[in-house]
Amino acid sequence: MPVLSDDPSSLDTLPTPCLVLDADRMDRNITRLRGHLDGLGVGMRPHLKTAKSVEVAQRLMPTPQGPATVSTLQEARRFAEAGVRDILYAVGISPAKLPEILALRAQGVDLAIVLDSVEQAEAVAAASRAAGTAIPALIEIDCDDHRSGVQPGDAVRLRAIGAALAQGGALRGVMTHAGGSYRARGAAELRACADAERDAVLSAARTLRAAGHDCPVISVGSTPTAHHATDLSGVTEVRAGVFVFFDLVMAGIGICSVDDIALSVLATVIGHQREKGWILVDAGWMAMSRDRGTAKQDVDQGYGLVCDRDGRPYGDLILVDANQEHGIIALRPGASGMLPDLAVGDRVRILPNHACATGAQHDRYHVVRAGSDTVEAVWPRFGGW
Amino acid sequence: MPVLSDDPSSLDTLPTPCLVLDADRMDRNITRLRGHLDGLGVGMRPHLKTAKSVEVAQRLMPTPQGPATVSTLQEARRFAEAGVRDILYAVGISPAKLPEILALRAQGVDLAIVLDSVEQAEAVAAASRAAGTAIPALIEIDCDDHRSGVQPGDAVRLRAIGAALAQGGALRGVMTHAGGSYRARGAAELRACADAERDAVLSAARTLRAAGHDCPVISVGSTPTAHHATDLSGVTEVRAGVFVFFDLVMAGIGICSVDDIALSVLATVIGHQREKGWILVDAGWMAMSRDRGTAKQDVDQGYGLVCDRDGRPYGDLILVDANQEHGIIALRPGASGMLPDLAVGDRVRILPNHACATGAQHDRYHVVRAGSDTVEAVWPRFGGW
Repeated sequence: MPVLSDDPSSLDTLPTPCLVLDADRMDRNITRLRGHLDGLGVGMRPHLKTAKSVEVAQRLMPTPQGPATVSTLQEARRFAEAGVRDILYAVGISPAKLPEILALRAQGVDLAIVLDSVEQAEAVAAASRAAGTAIPALIEIDCDDHRSGVQPGDAVRLRAIGAALAQGGALRGVMTHAGGSYRARGAAELRACADAERDAVLSAARTLRAAGHDCPVISVGSTPTAHHATDLSGVTEVRAGVFVFFDLVMAGIGICSVDDIALSVLATVIGHQREKGWILVDAGWMAMSRDRGTAKQDVDQGYGLVCDRDGRPYGDLILVDANQEHGIIALRPGASGMLPDLAVGDRVRILPNHACATGAQHDRYHVVRAGSDTVEAVWPRFGGW
Repeated sequence: MPVLSDDPSSLDTLPTPCLVLDADRMDRNITRLRGHLDGLGVGMRPHLKTAKSVEVAQRLMPTPQGPATVSTLQEARRFAEAGVRDILYAVGISPAKLPEILALRAQGVDLAIVLDSVEQAEAVAAASRAAGTAIPALIEIDCDDHRSGVQPGDAVRLRAIGAALAQGGALRGVMTHAGGSYRARGAAELRACADAERDAVLSAARTLRAAGHDCPVISVGSTPTAHHATDLSGVTEVRAGVFVFFDLVMAGIGICSVDDIALSVLATVIGHQREKGWILVDAGWMAMSRDRGTAKQDVDQGYGLVCDRDGRPYGDLILVDANQEHGIIALRPGASGMLPDLAVGDRVRILPNHACATGAQHDRYHVVRAGSDTVEAVWPRFGGW
């Protein structure tokens, strides 16, 4: 009987495709943002939706108990089980999810929710009254027209939501997410996004406070604005997620360099179409995700930027196309240069467009240190709702 | 203590987002292709990469033992555990995967592999000799320049692979996948793809047979060509996968109608931006996948076509944009018509661009019958490699 080739100790022997996490880069990314926010005098409530891993969360949060931001009740549940006690569920609440919010709160988790309508506020107040305990809610503010939230100047709606919450729930504050900053370029534009994000929540908070509501929490956050904010006076916390790993989209915006990207997919060469200049690998979109976030940026990275086994980019080599379990590596359109001499069985690492999406295709991280091929840990990650 | 709202018995109470499978539509899709191939006198080796579910596989395969096609060793492993005994692993082999191929074969699974180079054939022959048992291999043929495979007219390479395999492995036959048919439109073009797919493998088989090699298996397959083939003389089996559920990409090509699509994502309304004509739901790209396969088709369906809770399309209502856990529903650009009156808490079902990609975001199917809101079964599905 042959020995199975799943020795998990090295990048040379791991079954492919699989997810590799460079812990040195991750640690550097965390230290960088923490230092920046310390300098601005504001705390971090990291978004755990990128990592979905208890081990990463422990390195990311200010304390083992939090604070943390999540995007699903599954994340709330799993991180609560791991001891996190201060969680913001940052997706607009639907009434059917309130019983589980209450159940998690009854277990001692300070789980807060987000809403942007009177209907939701009335449902939260009613559920709070029925349970005999107030569910704390943040009003979502729309700082840049990209998704959900109350316009910061819509005083009528803000006051109505505040009044509805006061019938049983608890207004904890206001929050916004500058998702539009993903389309900004250059330090000046990014700083303007950060200023607009801050100003939107501060304006909404003034309206609520003038109407007699406490509004203790002023929460902002996106990875681009978090790194470019220069004045967060009045803001009480910053949420950011993807910065923990960074990715090609963030590099394209200019928030990080390619050398900061901590996540990659290890793949094996399975063939060639030499006359076309193609190298085929066993990482397709199932391993990379279908995310093509760089397609709209100045430099389109295809389905990912190809590096050698040690994580050094080959330059203009990208995953130009992907089927479910096949990836096609080629030189970027228009690039001069030579294809590297990669034989069947050789291994490469591919940097992702979007760390959240690529991570979600995998159930574990293989943790390495920069410059080492030894897998020093395997950290599980979870999905689902 | 409140009761958790995870009563799994009805589309009204399932936690959202989640995956819904209309088993009546699935059964109809299977019956349709089986009938078509029966009429052509050729058997089916269904591709299980779309479903990744033992329960779906049992309905899809000709017998409980197979035959079946898979795209990962994880699929081979899981379906072997469930009793499948005839499996083709249809992604070009890398030498590091051969020990597990041999291990599965030693358990009584007739697991065959695919390759398209002399290097791979030499590695297979060497591993077979070392193990004292021949690993059966199919030579992949490139019928339409879309991915991997030997050109059907490249007699030199075909004979060299055949000769290398003869040093210890076993040439079982030839296979191809007409992935280029996804870009074809109309019955005549699709029939031409099917003819070209058949002719490519028959031509390669003639070359191999003339060189003295047995070539018992002649395998073709893609969902579009499988449905449009009119003459498969000489072909021994047809592989197809996505037809089991169908999706918006297949409807866009004209292989199915929207009413044949068996897979949908159940989502809950969480808000509105009324002045923009937006309805927000709790299904973002994590629930739908990032697949935008219809973007290049005549009708761009965004991240999915929106139906009511019972699966009836609203017409021009699509998921126009998606963040990780937020979806934005709006009328298709340019459409006239009214937004449906959907309140916070109301539920919709969203048909996917690509069933393989959307399915992969979930760990279970909630099985319903057409016209019923009762969940009659929950079938697990798996991922990973």
